[in-house]
Amino acid sequence: MKYASHLACSVCKREFPADRPMNLCPHDGRPVQVSLDLGRLRKDYGRDGWWTPSRRDLWRFGGLLPLDVNDPDDARHVVTRGEGHTPCLPLPHPIADRVGCRFEVKDEGKPYPGFGANPTLSFKDRGMAMTVSMARALGLDRLAVPTQGNAGDSLAEYAVAAGIQAAVVMSPDTDLPVLARVAALAALHPDRVRLELVPGTIIDCGKRVREHYVPAGYFNVATFQEPGWRTEGKKTLGLEMAEPAGDRLADRTWRVPDVIVYPTGGGTGVVGMAKAFDELEALGLIDDRRPRMVCVQSEATAPVARAFAAGEPDISPMPPGRTLATGLNVAQNVGHVNVLRIIRETGGLAIAVTDDAIRTVIRDEWRARRFAWSPEGAATLAVAEELADRAMIRPGDRVVFVNTASAEKYLPTTRDLLGGGL
Amino acid sequence: MKYASHLACSVCKREFPADRPMNLCPHDGRPVQVSLDLGRLRKDYGRDGWWTPSRRDLWRFGGLLPLDVNDPDDARHVVTRGEGHTPCLPLPHPIADRVGCRFEVKDEGKPYPGFGANPTLSFKDRGMAMTVSMARALGLDRLAVPTQGNAGDSLAEYAVAAGIQAAVVMSPDTDLPVLARVAALAALHPDRVRLELVPGTIIDCGKRVREHYVPAGYFNVATFQEPGWRTEGKKTLGLEMAEPAGDRLADRTWRVPDVIVYPTGGGTGVVGMAKAFDELEALGLIDDRRPRMVCVQSEATAPVARAFAAGEPDISPMPPGRTLATGLNVAQNVGHVNVLRIIRETGGLAIAVTDDAIRTVIRDEWRARRFAWSPEGAATLAVAEELADRAMIRPGDRVVFVNTASAEKYLPTTRDLLGGGL
Repeated sequence: MKYASHLACSVCKREFPADRPMNLCPHDGRPVQVSLDLGRLRKDYGRDGWWTPSRRDLWRFGGLLPLDVNDPDDARHVVTRGEGHTPCLPLPHPIADRVGCRFEVKDEGKPYPGFGANPTLSFKDRGMAMTVSMARALGLDRLAVPTQGNAGDSLAEYAVAAGIQAAVVMSPDTDLPVLARVAALAALHPDRVRLELVPGTIIDCGKRVREHYVPAGYFNVATFQEPGWRTEGKKTLGLEMAEPAGDRLADRTWRVPDVIVYPTGGGTGVVGMAKAFDELEALGLIDDRRPRMVCVQSEATAPVARAFAAGEPDISPMPPGRTLATGLNVAQNVGHVNVLRIIRETGGLAIAVTDDAIRTVIRDEWRARRFAWSPEGAATLAVAEELADRAMIRPGDRVVFVNTASAEKYLPTTRDLLGGGL
Repeated sequence: MKYASHLACSVCKREFPADRPMNLCPHDGRPVQVSLDLGRLRKDYGRDGWWTPSRRDLWRFGGLLPLDVNDPDDARHVVTRGEGHTPCLPLPHPIADRVGCRFEVKDEGKPYPGFGANPTLSFKDRGMAMTVSMARALGLDRLAVPTQGNAGDSLAEYAVAAGIQAAVVMSPDTDLPVLARVAALAALHPDRVRLELVPGTIIDCGKRVREHYVPAGYFNVATFQEPGWRTEGKKTLGLEMAEPAGDRLADRTWRVPDVIVYPTGGGTGVVGMAKAFDELEALGLIDDRRPRMVCVQSEATAPVARAFAAGEPDISPMPPGRTLATGLNVAQNVGHVNVLRIIRETGGLAIAVTDDAIRTVIRDEWRARRFAWSPEGAATLAVAEELADRAMIRPGDRVVFVNTASAEKYLPTTRDLLGGGL
């Protein structure tokens, strides 16, 4: 952990040692984050010498991550399956034409030639690659996670790769391909992966992890409960959106998008991307302008959108709903307070969409372009019209929509929308 | 079992009681089949009054199956998940145009509006729906199967639906979506489904079933080891190809295709379809002409194609190979002798294809028509050119290619062939 100087509470800013496997801040119960010694990083590597653009995974960001793959002591803890380094693809769209802006989709869901790829076909691999690597660095060999599905799939994958033990606690209602992949890994590697099915939502699964697995010696890596490791992994989403590419490659110019439209369940990605941009600014690579952060939720479960509309500083817990965008069914999270702050600081927006709107996007986009959106990803494109109407997207803007996972992971739910089959 | 009169060995013709849960014929070690009292069926129902065309599953064939869904005593044992009754779709193809014949694909792999659908997206559901229903009728509540994958997936599905216990024994190398679905059912229903992973091929899995599960009280429902039940289920493939449709609906004319091109692992479908046609003839619904049966195997494991080419009456056991068409990797089976007989009696052919040829079909058909073939199904279309060259398909012929499963079940193996993703 060459450049990780300490942990700091994301709200009260109290500090803790970087190598402490802690959960929430003991003072205010909020998530902690990893603080990096950016001064020393810059001294060692220069402005962006820590960046290895030829590397085809998220570890390309070297010392700007809590484990620097270029440092031999750190590198031996790094567990990689080629995660991250996904493309931002041009997304032709009538609304983009009308507004005169550029839409891009950051596709986390499938492999593209010349890029990295998330091994379990979802953005959760970024956080779990980092979490399992950090756990190894700290000598933790039993991790537990409550999950809507994709995070569990990912933790299981990395636990097997790392040779540590993972307990995945999910609802029996989890999308079948996801539940099935975890069950398969548990069957193939019974000494590595344990799957427990708990009826209810991720809230019930979280309770089970705290009451059963934590006392049994498992370290809880639920969203924001771990010491900022998943956030560090998700941070790379923002780094990749800003890193030199195309015309900016020649002079290594870093530049953030104007708008990021992000499907927001727990919101680790939002917090991670915001942290990425703060660090890039601290290194002198970008200025103080930030992408307007648009957080898209499901109308079934929209604590952030409701708190945003009401002008509240934090969410009010609400009962979970039902949506085909299962990853958005997060009724409450201790980190939502930071998501709300970031939305407001960047002049962004929180907004909720219906399942019907999500279905329409999946069907229309498949028909028009054979692009298969996950339900959560589709939720972001479903708000494009409203973003244009509210002038949240403007002429000349670069607007990035995040497709967080492969549509494969939601079969058979999405089968009819995808033209009756693959 | 209203019209099931007895069991008979498929080779030596010795007879056994219809309600005896037996395995191979004790005299010659060959598969037994269910014999129906067609005279009584015809007396009760007339020529085809047992047929209920409005019913959207394979039980539409009523008393021509060993359990007659129209009989209250039989019906209470029937476990159905909507299996069978899949469409024969027109398959536009340059070779069909050149020869002047009609290609159709019988697609077992996905749901179509107005038809039935195999719940686990493969033709194995036909055999397993029948097997689990017959097991219930005979009071068997523990079944075991060695499998390449799809049969295990299917048995698990029906065991859960029927409330009986299934042991599924498969290789850890099984296609992941298939292994995963069984693992998921085992996780969701631990009292119903047991998954055991045995390294090796289906031969090794079969050994494990005989040595461990049979002594523990499980009834072995391996291909052809059970008393003809899977064959009775697969028989409905042939019945559906012949049943009145289109112009033939008005006068209820039954008519068989001219050629059937079938991917042949164990060959239950071949034996089942031949039995279907014999029974339709016995009922006076068709004449003595039979479809030329073309059995397609993988060059990696082609015992039937080799024995056919050599003019041998039975196969010689050979070591299993490796092919992406995992369902074709059957190195030996006690029922292959019947498959060879049927091919010869119908003037058909056994032929083997390479994995490259299979890949080409999957890729080209996806590009051209967005039709997703399973590797086994693709193997059938891969021989079209050779069938034309050898005049096995002729002007005016109706040629049916069988796509035995959904391409979904072979991800990620097939992902690249399908244009890099769904």
